[in-house]
Amino acid sequence: MMNQSDKQMRAALQAYVDALNAKDLAGVVDLYAEDATLEDPVGGPVLQGRAAIEAFYGRVVPLGLEVRMVAEPRGSHGNAAAMAFEVVAPTAEGGRARIKVIDVFTFDAAGKFTSMKAYWGPEDVGLA
Amino acid sequence: MMNQSDKQMRAALQAYVDALNAKDLAGVVDLYAEDATLEDPVGGPVLQGRAAIEAFYGRVVPLGLEVRMVAEPRGSHGNAAAMAFEVVAPTAEGGRARIKVIDVFTFDAAGKFTSMKAYWGPEDVGLA
Repeated sequence: MMNQSDKQMRAALQAYVDALNAKDLAGVVDLYAEDATLEDPVGGPVLQGRAAIEAFYGRVVPLGLEVRMVAEPRGSHGNAAAMAFEVVAPTAEGGRARIKVIDVFTFDAAGKFTSMKAYWGPEDVGLA
Repeated sequence: MMNQSDKQMRAALQAYVDALNAKDLAGVVDLYAEDATLEDPVGGPVLQGRAAIEAFYGRVVPLGLEVRMVAEPRGSHGNAAAMAFEVVAPTAEGGRARIKVIDVFTFDAAGKFTSMKAYWGPEDVGLA
């Protein structure tokens, strides 16, 4: 498996954040490989495949997320990268929730995400 | 498998940072389960077992690392947690290097680390 460069992986993470902030559902989904997996949050169900991933983002992206990295993304010496961020999202009750998250991604040779795992637990959710 | 609480996992991450800063090698190693794995950096060799893990930390802890979380640790809805941090370490040339890292840990029912993966790549290393 070809190693994605650190820089390419970082650029993909920034593109992901930018697409979320732009409510660009197609842009988000296009970052994923066809048979990718998504586990958000870690410990919840593992979704597999573009259709399931598109359905997942189709529920949250239109809400209008505000995503902000809280530190520079981290690469690796393999096909993986990670970033710490906060996301503000409207709640069903009309308020705004802030969720503190670390996402970990793996990449294929084409630079597409083959997996995403979102680390956030009950303690990471508060009012914005 | 019993789920470690978010709070217990966060406390273990803080204990890990504190033990590194205190140059407490035994304290660091004791946080790991007997058959745990360690991959630092991700994409490098995967060490397995307390002996290999102790040898790894035995090389770096005595150097005197300065470890600082750059955001609150993140939990999950399973047996995993993650944190973004920076570590300053002396170099062989007498300088100081700063490495930007995200560590991801999994936990057993006793609250010990069953795995640690350290996400940092060439672009994450600079002079302190």
